Amino acid sequence: MGAKRQILIIGAGRSATSLIQYLLDQSEKENLHLVVADMSLDLAQNKIKNQSNAIAVKLDIKDTAQRRELIKQSDIVISMLPAALHLEVAKDCILYGKSMVTASYVSPEMQDLDEQVKAKNLVFMNEIGLDPGIDHMSAMQIIDRIKANGGKMILFESFTGGLVAPESDDNLWNYKFTWNPRNVVVAGQGGAAKFIQEGTYKYIPYQKLFRRTEILNIDGYGKFEGLANRDSLKYREIYGLDAIKTMYRGTIRRVGYSKAWNVFVQLGMTDDTYEMENTKEMSYRDFTNSFLPYHPYDSVEIKLRHYLHIDQDDIIWDKLLELDLFDATKKVNMEQATPAQILEKILSEKWTLKPDDKDMIVMLHKFGYELNGENKQIESSMLIKGKDQHFTAMSDTVGLPVAMATLKILNGEITKPGVQIPIIKEVYEPILKELREHGIIFQEKEVPYLGYKSMS
Amino acid sequence: MGAKRQILIIGAGRSATSLIQYLLDQSEKENLHLVVADMSLDLAQNKIKNQSNAIAVKLDIKDTAQRRELIKQSDIVISMLPAALHLEVAKDCILYGKSMVTASYVSPEMQDLDEQVKAKNLVFMNEIGLDPGIDHMSAMQIIDRIKANGGKMILFESFTGGLVAPESDDNLWNYKFTWNPRNVVVAGQGGAAKFIQEGTYKYIPYQKLFRRTEILNIDGYGKFEGLANRDSLKYREIYGLDAIKTMYRGTIRRVGYSKAWNVFVQLGMTDDTYEMENTKEMSYRDFTNSFLPYHPYDSVEIKLRHYLHIDQDDIIWDKLLELDLFDATKKVNMEQATPAQILEKILSEKWTLKPDDKDMIVMLHKFGYELNGENKQIESSMLIKGKDQHFTAMSDTVGLPVAMATLKILNGEITKPGVQIPIIKEVYEPILKELREHGIIFQEKEVPYLGYKSMS
Repeated sequence: MGAKRQILIIGAGRSATSLIQYLLDQSEKENLHLVVADMSLDLAQNKIKNQSNAIAVKLDIKDTAQRRELIKQSDIVISMLPAALHLEVAKDCILYGKSMVTASYVSPEMQDLDEQVKAKNLVFMNEIGLDPGIDHMSAMQIIDRIKANGGKMILFESFTGGLVAPESDDNLWNYKFTWNPRNVVVAGQGGAAKFIQEGTYKYIPYQKLFRRTEILNIDGYGKFEGLANRDSLKYREIYGLDAIKTMYRGTIRRVGYSKAWNVFVQLGMTDDTYEMENTKEMSYRDFTNSFLPYHPYDSVEIKLRHYLHIDQDDIIWDKLLELDLFDATKKVNMEQATPAQILEKILSEKWTLKPDDKDMIVMLHKFGYELNGENKQIESSMLIKGKDQHFTAMSDTVGLPVAMATLKILNGEITKPGVQIPIIKEVYEPILKELREHGIIFQEKEVPYLGYKSMS
Repeated sequence: MGAKRQILIIGAGRSATSLIQYLLDQSEKENLHLVVADMSLDLAQNKIKNQSNAIAVKLDIKDTAQRRELIKQSDIVISMLPAALHLEVAKDCILYGKSMVTASYVSPEMQDLDEQVKAKNLVFMNEIGLDPGIDHMSAMQIIDRIKANGGKMILFESFTGGLVAPESDDNLWNYKFTWNPRNVVVAGQGGAAKFIQEGTYKYIPYQKLFRRTEILNIDGYGKFEGLANRDSLKYREIYGLDAIKTMYRGTIRRVGYSKAWNVFVQLGMTDDTYEMENTKEMSYRDFTNSFLPYHPYDSVEIKLRHYLHIDQDDIIWDKLLELDLFDATKKVNMEQATPAQILEKILSEKWTLKPDDKDMIVMLHKFGYELNGENKQIESSMLIKGKDQHFTAMSDTVGLPVAMATLKILNGEITKPGVQIPIIKEVYEPILKELREHGIIFQEKEVPYLGYKSMS
């Protein structure tokens, strides 16, 4: 068989589980040897068990000598590090002539490496997880097909959500954390949401974001709601849709989530920019009261109801109660915490997946196009449930495309050099095909064109 | 008489008018020679007219050689530059052993110079304009007196506003720009408002700031509203009020202003963090519509009313109409403008002072204290109207204390070395006394203690 081909996987967190398992499953047939490197040796060892085609190593990513040694010995490198840490790995990969795969957005600094990557004929494949990743591939496959058939794209909307599966859904929010809770708490901050509808540019500030949802329907699973992502506009260029009249990307939640979440936004509980006073001794009730006007005897409850106009019979109220937001005995017990950190703690007590809980990924694309003078629409959706708390839908949908792309680059099936994202046929066709074999399947249907002009 | 004492004034903008005039008026008696330096020679010349005791010079503040030469030749330096530009001047002042005066907040970098300033026995007096400035002095005078009489401070609230005088008030907002319009448009952004009420810390996010006003009363001038400034908490230490139970600093507007301004906040029109698309061709109506949901035929008007729940008979609506926010013929006509820049332009068309308009400064302090087991309260207020469009109330209240402090440092009446703010008796007593002679007078009265505990 010759020498084994060595794959270095940096970062063995939750998102790496399915990715490592896939490569282990392929290791005999493909003659692979995996090196799983993490800050925590335990974590790395847990992921590979006692498999013979893999070793776990402890790696401090700041240790340049060790990092470089590992990269130098490998044939290809997967970085599952937080996005901000990819760059040093990327530079080392250029130094030693190794291709690289990440599930993260291409940073400007990563993009700047494009020429050097091309000069060494390497493939740096990024944004090949779920979102970004499967969204790019599944959208581009249909967009390219519509164009190839002579259609002209006029509308593209795309939504993704990481949710809890219906069978594990036992709270009023119909939501649990299936990914980094911090990202959920601060979601939507740092800039207005930007998109275009029927040729009109639209902007939603953070303070209105959770009140501008639209209802989505997924066959067999009922209604969901979509809320706008930060910047939908830049995808016009990336997807080759510069002349498109409607371009909207969003996040999926169960119906009613966003309107209740807006309570946190309006109170100021999602703010991560300052530390509150006395957070060690603060009760959950104190925390809530911090954002309400002072009154010598009115209750926190009546002040909040009045402040945010929450009627006696509004289900939002029960959602707040469920979180113990008015509990005077539960303590925050954190030093110098921001509102967002405290909210994350409060939510985590209720929204953490139990051992038997399953997560669920939902993705929905809407493609509007003109063909032979007629307006048409295709909807394409994917709904994946997790197997267990390790092999979650999130882990599968993020990790499998990363693993598949890695192997295909190693095997010379994906060859286009440079800093890439998976929007070309050479990449998305074989990976979407293999994802289908793993049960990650899009349902496609034609629907009447529902572009906005038809309302009049 | 001996050689004239040279005062260098860097920056000859609006805020320097009264300051320069005061020093010109004193120049014979005090044997002064003024050097007024500005980017614009015209502006500097305009301020000194043809007075014999002053010259105007053109200065590029980045021209180190020229800047240093001017500082070296002077006996004391006043910097009326934007706050960010003080530092180079300050360093040169240390180099050549000159004292310095500014109306700006002490930056951390300025504070870091304290030891060097003390080592050279110089006075760097900052925050000696209106707000900060007169607020510090007038508050500390009463706080020190209450303490000296054996009182214990339990409440301090302080409000300042730059408004239009009633006789020049001809719009529904009861507001015109009397200072930098940009600061008005972005006011309150960049962090939650923080204060303490009856021992309870309170935080207001930007999205609720303009709905958390309180009503203020100024004898003879009726009702105003106060809204919280960013950080009231840090003044506890500065004013020596560490154990105080209520500490609140705010901005004054005419009643109803904030609730209407909240429309801009909720729409996202005050956002200065991104550039909108197509702002060259955009009409005011397009601008407003950018922040509203798309609809093929519903009007911008009905969408806005519905979105923000503005009733048919709500005066807020007339305030919006007055600004031409729904005008489809008026063009923004700016390249790559942010929402805040566009809003500033729209507002400036209506809110700019006319040649005969007068501005007005309002300041109100509330001091609650315990004396001999009794709770007492003092209210102290100041209301100043401008003389004309050059000698505005803003120019007087910012410039006169700066000028007075400069002369008193020059004359050895203010001597405490270091990076200072005007919170000690040596500074505030003589300056408040002289301000009274110029008509800047506080009205003080005892009122029943209205601390919040008394509500119950």
